[in-house]
Amino acid sequence: MLTMQDALARLTAYWVDQGCLTVQPMNTEVGAGTLNPATFLRVLGPEPWRVVYVEPSVRPDDSRYGENPNRLQTHTQLQVILKPDPGNSQELYLGSLAALGIDVAAHDVRFVEDNWASPALGAWGLGWEVWLDGLEITQFTYFQQAGGINLDPPSVEITYGMERIIMALQGVRHFKDIEYAAGVSYGEVFGQGEYEMSRYYLDDADVAANRELLELYAAEAQRMLDAGLPVPAHSYVLKSSHAFNVLDARGAVSTSDRAAEFGRMRRMAGEVAKLWIARREELGHPLGVVTAREPATAPAAEQDSPGTRQLVFEIGTEEMPPAEARAVREQVRRELTERLAATRLAHGDIRVLATPRRIVAIVEAVADREQDHVRTVRGPKVSAAYDAAGEPTQAVRGFARGQGVELADLEQQDVNGVAHVTVVKHENGRPAAEVLADVLAKVVTALRSAKNMRWNDPALSFTRPIRWLLALRGDEVVPFAVSTLASGRQTRVHRTAEAPVVTVNSAEIHLDTLRAHGIVADPDERRAEIVASAQRLAAAAGGQVDVEGERALIDQISYLVEQPNALLGRFDESYLRLPEAVLATVMRKHQRYLPVRDADGDLLPCFVAVANGTVDEDLVRAGNEAVLRARYEDAAFFYRADRDTPLDAMRARLERLTFTDKLGSMADRATRISTLARTLATGIGLGGHDRDTLGRAAELVKFDLGAQLVTEMTSLAGVMARDYATHAGEPAAVAQAVFESELPRNTGDAVPAHVPGAVLSLADRLDLVAGLAATVGLPTGSSDPFAVRRAVLGLLAVHRTGLVPTSLTEGLAAAAAQQPVDVSDQVLADTAEFLTRRLEQVLVEEGHPVDRVRAVLPHADRPALADRLLHQLDELTKDERFRALVEAIQRCRRIVPAGTPAEYDASALVEPAERRLDEVVRGIEVPGPDLADFLAAAGRVTEPVNTFFDEVYVMAEDPDLRRARLGLLATVRDLGAGLLDWDHLRM
Amino acid sequence: MLTMQDALARLTAYWVDQGCLTVQPMNTEVGAGTLNPATFLRVLGPEPWRVVYVEPSVRPDDSRYGENPNRLQTHTQLQVILKPDPGNSQELYLGSLAALGIDVAAHDVRFVEDNWASPALGAWGLGWEVWLDGLEITQFTYFQQAGGINLDPPSVEITYGMERIIMALQGVRHFKDIEYAAGVSYGEVFGQGEYEMSRYYLDDADVAANRELLELYAAEAQRMLDAGLPVPAHSYVLKSSHAFNVLDARGAVSTSDRAAEFGRMRRMAGEVAKLWIARREELGHPLGVVTAREPATAPAAEQDSPGTRQLVFEIGTEEMPPAEARAVREQVRRELTERLAATRLAHGDIRVLATPRRIVAIVEAVADREQDHVRTVRGPKVSAAYDAAGEPTQAVRGFARGQGVELADLEQQDVNGVAHVTVVKHENGRPAAEVLADVLAKVVTALRSAKNMRWNDPALSFTRPIRWLLALRGDEVVPFAVSTLASGRQTRVHRTAEAPVVTVNSAEIHLDTLRAHGIVADPDERRAEIVASAQRLAAAAGGQVDVEGERALIDQISYLVEQPNALLGRFDESYLRLPEAVLATVMRKHQRYLPVRDADGDLLPCFVAVANGTVDEDLVRAGNEAVLRARYEDAAFFYRADRDTPLDAMRARLERLTFTDKLGSMADRATRISTLARTLATGIGLGGHDRDTLGRAAELVKFDLGAQLVTEMTSLAGVMARDYATHAGEPAAVAQAVFESELPRNTGDAVPAHVPGAVLSLADRLDLVAGLAATVGLPTGSSDPFAVRRAVLGLLAVHRTGLVPTSLTEGLAAAAAQQPVDVSDQVLADTAEFLTRRLEQVLVEEGHPVDRVRAVLPHADRPALADRLLHQLDELTKDERFRALVEAIQRCRRIVPAGTPAEYDASALVEPAERRLDEVVRGIEVPGPDLADFLAAAGRVTEPVNTFFDEVYVMAEDPDLRRARLGLLATVRDLGAGLLDWDHLRM
Repeated sequence: MLTMQDALARLTAYWVDQGCLTVQPMNTEVGAGTLNPATFLRVLGPEPWRVVYVEPSVRPDDSRYGENPNRLQTHTQLQVILKPDPGNSQELYLGSLAALGIDVAAHDVRFVEDNWASPALGAWGLGWEVWLDGLEITQFTYFQQAGGINLDPPSVEITYGMERIIMALQGVRHFKDIEYAAGVSYGEVFGQGEYEMSRYYLDDADVAANRELLELYAAEAQRMLDAGLPVPAHSYVLKSSHAFNVLDARGAVSTSDRAAEFGRMRRMAGEVAKLWIARREELGHPLGVVTAREPATAPAAEQDSPGTRQLVFEIGTEEMPPAEARAVREQVRRELTERLAATRLAHGDIRVLATPRRIVAIVEAVADREQDHVRTVRGPKVSAAYDAAGEPTQAVRGFARGQGVELADLEQQDVNGVAHVTVVKHENGRPAAEVLADVLAKVVTALRSAKNMRWNDPALSFTRPIRWLLALRGDEVVPFAVSTLASGRQTRVHRTAEAPVVTVNSAEIHLDTLRAHGIVADPDERRAEIVASAQRLAAAAGGQVDVEGERALIDQISYLVEQPNALLGRFDESYLRLPEAVLATVMRKHQRYLPVRDADGDLLPCFVAVANGTVDEDLVRAGNEAVLRARYEDAAFFYRADRDTPLDAMRARLERLTFTDKLGSMADRATRISTLARTLATGIGLGGHDRDTLGRAAELVKFDLGAQLVTEMTSLAGVMARDYATHAGEPAAVAQAVFESELPRNTGDAVPAHVPGAVLSLADRLDLVAGLAATVGLPTGSSDPFAVRRAVLGLLAVHRTGLVPTSLTEGLAAAAAQQPVDVSDQVLADTAEFLTRRLEQVLVEEGHPVDRVRAVLPHADRPALADRLLHQLDELTKDERFRALVEAIQRCRRIVPAGTPAEYDASALVEPAERRLDEVVRGIEVPGPDLADFLAAAGRVTEPVNTFFDEVYVMAEDPDLRRARLGLLATVRDLGAGLLDWDHLRM
Repeated sequence: MLTMQDALARLTAYWVDQGCLTVQPMNTEVGAGTLNPATFLRVLGPEPWRVVYVEPSVRPDDSRYGENPNRLQTHTQLQVILKPDPGNSQELYLGSLAALGIDVAAHDVRFVEDNWASPALGAWGLGWEVWLDGLEITQFTYFQQAGGINLDPPSVEITYGMERIIMALQGVRHFKDIEYAAGVSYGEVFGQGEYEMSRYYLDDADVAANRELLELYAAEAQRMLDAGLPVPAHSYVLKSSHAFNVLDARGAVSTSDRAAEFGRMRRMAGEVAKLWIARREELGHPLGVVTAREPATAPAAEQDSPGTRQLVFEIGTEEMPPAEARAVREQVRRELTERLAATRLAHGDIRVLATPRRIVAIVEAVADREQDHVRTVRGPKVSAAYDAAGEPTQAVRGFARGQGVELADLEQQDVNGVAHVTVVKHENGRPAAEVLADVLAKVVTALRSAKNMRWNDPALSFTRPIRWLLALRGDEVVPFAVSTLASGRQTRVHRTAEAPVVTVNSAEIHLDTLRAHGIVADPDERRAEIVASAQRLAAAAGGQVDVEGERALIDQISYLVEQPNALLGRFDESYLRLPEAVLATVMRKHQRYLPVRDADGDLLPCFVAVANGTVDEDLVRAGNEAVLRARYEDAAFFYRADRDTPLDAMRARLERLTFTDKLGSMADRATRISTLARTLATGIGLGGHDRDTLGRAAELVKFDLGAQLVTEMTSLAGVMARDYATHAGEPAAVAQAVFESELPRNTGDAVPAHVPGAVLSLADRLDLVAGLAATVGLPTGSSDPFAVRRAVLGLLAVHRTGLVPTSLTEGLAAAAAQQPVDVSDQVLADTAEFLTRRLEQVLVEEGHPVDRVRAVLPHADRPALADRLLHQLDELTKDERFRALVEAIQRCRRIVPAGTPAEYDASALVEPAERRLDEVVRGIEVPGPDLADFLAAAGRVTEPVNTFFDEVYVMAEDPDLRRARLGLLATVRDLGAGLLDWDHLRM
């Protein structure tokens, strides 16, 4: 059995063989290998650097007294830095796994999007977590920035999580059971330290002392910065970071502390980085300077295949994030279409396919040349071109010279009836290769994603590195070069294939060639295969996969594999005792497994995992099952621990969770929600049992954010609250209310079904929207980091349940009043407007005619009311009486000048029709906001109004009479004022 | 070429193959691998532990900005712990060198005594530094105590100094030039950190901040101790230790700080150790418990060789310190002699030889059996044995039964004329094997040295582990067992021999067998070989070795090798520019090389090194030359640095050197010496040029203790002072005085030749003696850690130069008055007495008769005077006149009763003889303390005294007359009072 210490030695030796230095771990506590100067400082500047080292990484917050099988306050990272990016770091990495004895061809090794950022270090990078049969074993990052400085060249950072890898390789379930060295377990060597340091970090560290340490460290760091010494400065930045982490683990970091500390660290890390770069420059870069790779040369042109042939263009990349791969398909399609359209090269359909590692564009029937082209160039008017004697003027001579033709070659042509001198040019179409080379090069250069990175290419930038370009029109290569890449006829298949690089003979056989090597280029095909095999496997297990419900997940999986290979895995039935939400969340979000359900929709103890390509299925299944088991074991551990924790204790932990810098802790927020909920309840006259339920639920609201399981899986907020509250003996209604307070969690999610939950849900969202609108601002465009838009949609959805007929604008004002920041009237007005616009959009998207929607928008602050009125409108517009009433009222609105008050001297009325109308109007009692009631009450005005208009001339000469008649009509006009926006109402 | 990182990997892999765990370096700064919990905690308690790890060891005080070729603030240790001692750790260690590619048979690898103690950790051990061709590459220690707790079992600790080893293997002269990894130098990787951290430690660290850190760390450590958590407590003890080291490097540690801090650390380390042991016990010793080795069984007895045969008894050990090996020879000789004498085994001469690894006792002509023996046991008197009837009484029956004989076997014998019943027993002598087995076992058990250790033997204790016992009488093994060791016929030769274990056929050929394997058992032979070959080599280089002057060194070398192999090495002539003392000190003290001198006694640029056994001489020579070069380079570096440092700046550094906890810093001491010297000078009326010289020299005294070179080689104190003072332009007399102030440095050393130096030398020693007598106490027995005895001897020697005729007791009182502690009168009196006794001993050892010595001891506070008087005594005792005078005075002393005053009424005298005596006595003027003057002045009293006694009857009946006569004689008696102690004077 490979022991942990042997694994460390083997990996180290492997990377040393790849030219890495080895150094020792940092001699002060660090949270990750990245902080060691061998990474943080060495990735800066132009010097090359290759290093491998072990870093015991200390994370006080992960302290678990050694009880949690998968979590340690000190875990062992093995860190590799390759600077510059060697271009084949993924292949090198796979070699390192082989060095550990892992058969990478038999296992399912995947690179799954995972980007990394440390705001406190001003550092970020793009990359992956590497999965071994579903287990995250390595963090793999193209380091882009450190200390706020762009890294040039970027470095590849590979961080192995050693305990995890070894647990998987040794098949043990608790880190203490790892065979650390022959005959000696991890627990025997490190167990006591793990317990005692956990005690220190969680319970016993002196807060005041660590605060002083933090300040002393930061001051020394600053002094060293001032002295121009980045090395000791960095060391003290690390010390201050650790002291901060200790305080955090002790729950002693306030919101403002955190913000201030992160700011300070970011600033100091930035200064350290700048100083280091300056010093290295002064020292003349002792390790030399990385030189940028030379641009590639386009391959020699080949004879174009005659006639129309297919064009296939493959852009090979390292694993793209699924969303990026999807987006880039469309981008390449558009680019190709537009750029080809700008040529005169005839071609057929354009299709773009994609896998995680390639974008494949296929253009049918591409001609072998551009069409020839005749072009007429207009010169001076004929009248100006020749003088009276018919001699060419200076103007026409100049034109001819400019066009490079003789005077004799000039022709004449009418333009808008005026004769002009012209030159007609016959241009020959270019060969297809030439045209396509230009187009394809531009497509590559134009590639962009939402978040772009740099690698060892001096000019390109994309979501992940581009590694090869295959471009074939028919049998021939389209010859071009982009930066360091030259086009060719070689593609790459699975990295673990015997020959991972494959030559393609012609465009037409490219997809088949890929397929022959196990790669399905078409995402739709992959999706269909996944669905089919998942259902087959699920059926074999007596269940099914909810294909509709798992649509998004299946889409994602389609872009995580090049060749789907679905496997049925099982887990122990005993885990079914965990809450369903936990089980499903782990499968879906963490593992990308498809849950399998029985006919009633209940989970079965199995799952479908989709591996990439041909693997040893038993091995991969066993691996995935072990990962799920570990995750469930973890969840069960947290679940038990949480259930053993009093609700109040969990609630108390909210003090340690920041909401936002300016809006305080989660505890502050929960308190605000609680207060606001009570206010809303009073407003709607909530009483009796519901009032009691709300009272207790408000005390508890958000408490489960302090639960370990929810800390791990935030999407379980609310679900776990209900579970834990029930377990703690709270009344079912209270538990339900706390659960419902989190609803809806996203568009289409359930909404609260009971008043207390609905009140809490509204209070929650009102607080969030009011606070964020005043601090971060309302969302614009796609940027909405705090999901304000979702909260607003939630407000609307909850209100529309009708359970809480409160005014949202009043609610917002109340929420605003208790924010720790000032919320101006303007902000409130803007927020109300934002809410109105969202409601309008929602209602229109639900299929209501825009005019009717707008007619009810005056009630946007009570969406439930708007909703009801809108539905009444939908019904009543079919009712002739209502239509007539509306028409009658609109007639009044049309004739009565704006500003006319709804009052009149009835004694001035003279005609029977108007007196009758007066009488009817007087008898109408305006009802509440209900169109049916309105119709019932006001419907009888229709006939008198119509009679009035038939019989009475409104604009009487007698001013008093005219005033009275207008006033009468204005009164009719206003019968429905406030009920609808009549401006928008058309029948 | 073996790079440094490969060397670390190879050593780690080697020790892992030997069953070691690997762990990571400590994640807080430590000064040595010993501090890592993998050593400090794991050596405690009964659990087994084998570990290897790298420890970058941070010593702020060693910061040199990366400029010194051999000194770094962070150097790399590779640390190995073997617990329990496997019994063959030296062999395992040699295997590790082989793993580095070192041909241990070709090189000269030696284990040279070096014990280790860390008072701050309450830790110590005995062991060696390992020399590779004269280079110290490893510290090898049997760890005996940690945290003040005896280690059971003890651990073997092996600490490799990696930079040194690699510099030697790579043949580079500056650590920055080490090839750290292929193509990358150490300087390129660590140079900047070395410079910047040096800046921090030496110049830029904030003293106030580090003081606060120190206190915060210590407080957290204490809190964790109180919480019962040894692991975090230990971590904080380490942090506090580092903070202290930073303060120390910044020169910010006062004497009292240091004492207090060491005390605190020792206490905390002790508590950590106790807690750890308790916790491990509570945890049930997760790694198991080391079981003590089983006692050995004696081998089966063999047939004793008939007749008389030689006995050879070899006790095999790991390398003993030379002094211990010498001492144990005598011990074994005495033990053997006495124990054999207690048997009846006939034998011849007893010789004991020794090498570093063995004690060989040879007893000639040992008989094959003890002599037989007849023994008579006395019973009751015959009268009590038989009753009147002649029947045996109860008494005699009991006697017979007790002796196990029949009544008939009883005999009778007269004892002092009384007839007793007796039993005569004929006892046969035991076989030699039986007798010797008992004797030899006891000799082994009784082995003890000045400082003893424990190893993997549960019962034995000695200077170093005992590993084998060879015991042969003639052809046969003397069969016995002592603890885990059984006697046998196997010896061990050089560890690098092809067959390191050799079987010896008979006692008589043992020494030849050893010799055949290159081992010279007889130290005298080895010494002779060393002298002969050293002289031969020196002569070849045109010089000679001062065999007489280097006697002690040659003695030591004789005990450092088993087979002397002298080599001539050379060094660059340019180093001859360094002071001779530096060159010689490095050769002798550090390297145990014999300096080679020309006919004038000046050093030649070569040396004789003595390797052990057959080696590759060129290789070993080159190695030794490189070591010397590095040392000289180091010295030259310091020498240049010192010469560039103003004297005042060096003097100022004394503030940072502690003299003793209670007596302040070296600066305090220098100030006291300076003041006292001026007082003494005034006392002796020093004036003119000498006074000026003393004034300046007193300002400078001890300044060179602040020099880097003297810090490195304390024995150069004074020598370097003269050099640096001269270089700084001080007058020659001042430089000489500062030099002479350190004289004499040991018994037989030169003494000051000029008054200013002599005054300073006395002041130095008076201050030391007064202060230490009051705080540590006067030395008793062999314990004299501060060398008070040597200081007193220095006082005597300097005073005896006669340059400073001051009173030492007055000087002591003056010195006492300025100590920072109270020095009681009793202490002063005891000190004066101590001084007197030393003087007595010195003078007697110089060959003066005890009575004369005692006669001059009243002047012990002025040894020069005592000296002069004693020499006069030696001369004058040959002078009849003096002898007669003494006799005359002694006659007076005898007759005059004690207490008789030296006064009389001359008018009462009546006889001519007494009147004449009166007249003569009156005419004598008592001179100064000089016996010749005394004789000249008082000699004429002899004849009148003698006449007086002939003619006058002293005890006249007339009381007035008697009183006058006695008064007259008392006056004669007192003529020499104060000059000598007449009680002790015999002629």
